[in-house]
Amino acid sequence: MARAWTLAARPQGTPRPTDFALIERDLPALGEGQVRVANRWLSVDPYMRGRMNDVKSYVPPFQLGEPMDGGAIGEVVESRAPGLAPGDLVQHMRGWRDEAVLDAADAQKLPALDVPPQAFLGQLGMPGMTAWFGLLAVAEAKAGDTVFVSAAAGAVGSTVVQIAKAKGMTVIGSAGGADKAAWVRELGVDQAIDYKAGPVARALGEVAPKGIDVYFDNVGGDHLDAALAHARPRARFAICGMIDVYNDARPTELRYLARLIGNRVRMQGFIVSDYLSRASEFYTGMGDLLATGRLQRQETVHDGLEATPDAFLGLFTGGNTGKMLVRL
Amino acid sequence: MARAWTLAARPQGTPRPTDFALIERDLPALGEGQVRVANRWLSVDPYMRGRMNDVKSYVPPFQLGEPMDGGAIGEVVESRAPGLAPGDLVQHMRGWRDEAVLDAADAQKLPALDVPPQAFLGQLGMPGMTAWFGLLAVAEAKAGDTVFVSAAAGAVGSTVVQIAKAKGMTVIGSAGGADKAAWVRELGVDQAIDYKAGPVARALGEVAPKGIDVYFDNVGGDHLDAALAHARPRARFAICGMIDVYNDARPTELRYLARLIGNRVRMQGFIVSDYLSRASEFYTGMGDLLATGRLQRQETVHDGLEATPDAFLGLFTGGNTGKMLVRL
Repeated sequence: MARAWTLAARPQGTPRPTDFALIERDLPALGEGQVRVANRWLSVDPYMRGRMNDVKSYVPPFQLGEPMDGGAIGEVVESRAPGLAPGDLVQHMRGWRDEAVLDAADAQKLPALDVPPQAFLGQLGMPGMTAWFGLLAVAEAKAGDTVFVSAAAGAVGSTVVQIAKAKGMTVIGSAGGADKAAWVRELGVDQAIDYKAGPVARALGEVAPKGIDVYFDNVGGDHLDAALAHARPRARFAICGMIDVYNDARPTELRYLARLIGNRVRMQGFIVSDYLSRASEFYTGMGDLLATGRLQRQETVHDGLEATPDAFLGLFTGGNTGKMLVRL
Repeated sequence: MARAWTLAARPQGTPRPTDFALIERDLPALGEGQVRVANRWLSVDPYMRGRMNDVKSYVPPFQLGEPMDGGAIGEVVESRAPGLAPGDLVQHMRGWRDEAVLDAADAQKLPALDVPPQAFLGQLGMPGMTAWFGLLAVAEAKAGDTVFVSAAAGAVGSTVVQIAKAKGMTVIGSAGGADKAAWVRELGVDQAIDYKAGPVARALGEVAPKGIDVYFDNVGGDHLDAALAHARPRARFAICGMIDVYNDARPTELRYLARLIGNRVRMQGFIVSDYLSRASEFYTGMGDLLATGRLQRQETVHDGLEATPDAFLGLFTGGNTGKMLVRL
C-alpha cells in the first residue's frame, strides 16, 4: 500500500494540521512506458497554499480527498520505460506521497552533477529558476544596482542574494530573527535586516540611504511598502510571492504606493513556468556559479512522510532557513 | 502691478483656500530676448498638489511666498525677442498669475491649428500627451484590448477614452455621478461605471466579465484594487495619478494585490515629461484624430484670476468635467 497526503478540508486562513489527511491506497500496475518511484525527498513550497483554495489560478486547485502534488525526487523501483532503470533518481511532481506510478514523460532523470539530489528541488530546481529569472529577466538587475531581497533566508531569496552578489550588485537582504539575519550575512549580503527587530521601512532607509534599484518581493505587505518608500527612479520590482497575504483576508496597506508615479517604478508579477523555455540559460549560469564555489546551500529537513504538513506549515511561521524539505 | 497666487502655507491633507495668497508686485523691465505676456488661460492640474509638499520629487516643491507655476496660455504684450510680437499667443509655465516676464526660450508660440488656444492646455497639451503615451507606450494598449480608465470624465481620462476607441479597443470608463457617466458614454465608451452608485470592483466585474487587459489609473485606491481583481493574464497598468491619495495620509488598502503574481500583471508608474522627445508622434497622432472629428472636448471654466484656488480645489471634489481651466 502506498501512502499519500490529501487535502481533507480547504483551509480558512492559515492552514491547520486537520486540513490534511494521510490515506493509503493501492498503486495501479505499471503500464507500458510507466515507472514506479519511491520518493526520497519531497518539496514544500509557499505557492502550494494557493492551490488549496478553490479558485481559478495559474495552477488548478487541489481536489479534496485526492493526493496533493508537489516537487519530489524519487528512485525508480520498477520500470516499463526505456531509458529509466531501477536505481535511477528522477525529479517529478507526485510529491506529498511515498510512492507513485507515473509516465516516464513526467519524470526527468537527474543530470550527473556533483550535487546532492535534493538540490534539484532547490537551487537547481524551481526555487533557483525563480530566483534567476526573477532577478535577471523580470527585474532586469545588472551590475552596480542596489538590490533589496525579502525572505532572504528562504529557498528563493537566499539564491537571489547569491546570484546578485556574483553578478556585482549591492545586496540588502531581510530575514526574520537574528539567526536568519546572521546566515544571510554569511551569504555575502552588503547589509542584512532583521525585520523582527523594528520597522523594515526605517531599517531599509538606514542601510540604503540612496535608495534601491531593484526589489525582489517574496513577502508583500510592509516589505513591499518599504521598497516603495525607498525606490530610486526607474526601480524595478519583481513580484514573486506575497507569503504575508496568502493566509490573510486582510487587505495590504501601502502608504507609499503613489511613489510609483514620480519614480516611474515598474512592478511586475511573474511565475517561473513562463521561463521554462529559457531553462538552458539558467542551468548554464547556475552551473558556472556552482563550479566556482559561489553558491552556498542551506536546508531545513523534516524526516518522514508524516511530517509533510508540519514542514509545509512551517513555511508560514518562519520555520525554515534555506529550502524546506521532507526526507523519506 | 501684476498679481500672482503664492503658496501661503503648505497644505495638511486637502488644501484649503487659506493656503493660498494673492500678491501684487512690479514686473521687471524687459531684458534682451524677453517678452511680457498677459495670461488668457491658466491650467490647474492634480500633479500640482505634490509640489505643495516640501518633499523631493520629480518636480521641485513650490516655495512659500513665491508665485506658483503651472501651464498657461498668454498673449505677448511687449517683446524684446525676435520672432515674438505683440498679439502672439504663447504657451508657457508661468501660470497662477495675470502677467509675467519670461525668456522667449521658455515660451512656445501656438501652432496655427484650427482649435481654440486653451486646447493646448488640454488635449493638445500636457494632459493629452499624458493620455497618449500612458495608453500607447506605457500600457502598450493595442486594438482588441479591453481598457479600463478611471476618472474618465477628467482631462486625461476623457482623452484616453477617445484615443482608445479610435484605435479599436473596448473601453470601460469610470466617473463619479450620473451626469459625468452620461458624458463618458457620449465619448463613446462601451461601458460606463458611475462609481458613486456602488462598489467599483463589483461594477467592473459586471461590465467586464472576461476581465481587462489594460488599466489607466488616474485615481488609485478602490479603482486600482478593482482593476487588480479583474486583471487578465499579462495585463498592463499605466499608473498616471492617484488623486484619491494625494491629500490623504491613510494607506491604500488593496485586497487583490497578490493577483499581480498569478496574472503576471505589470504596474508601471510614469510621468509625461519622460516622453517629450517623442512629442512629434503625439502631435501627428492627435492631429489625425482632430482632423477626422474623433475628439470631443469638454471644459470646466472658472473666470478671473481670483477663482484659481477654487478651480484647483475643485479637482479633488469632482468639480470638473473635462479640463479644468481659469479664463482671465
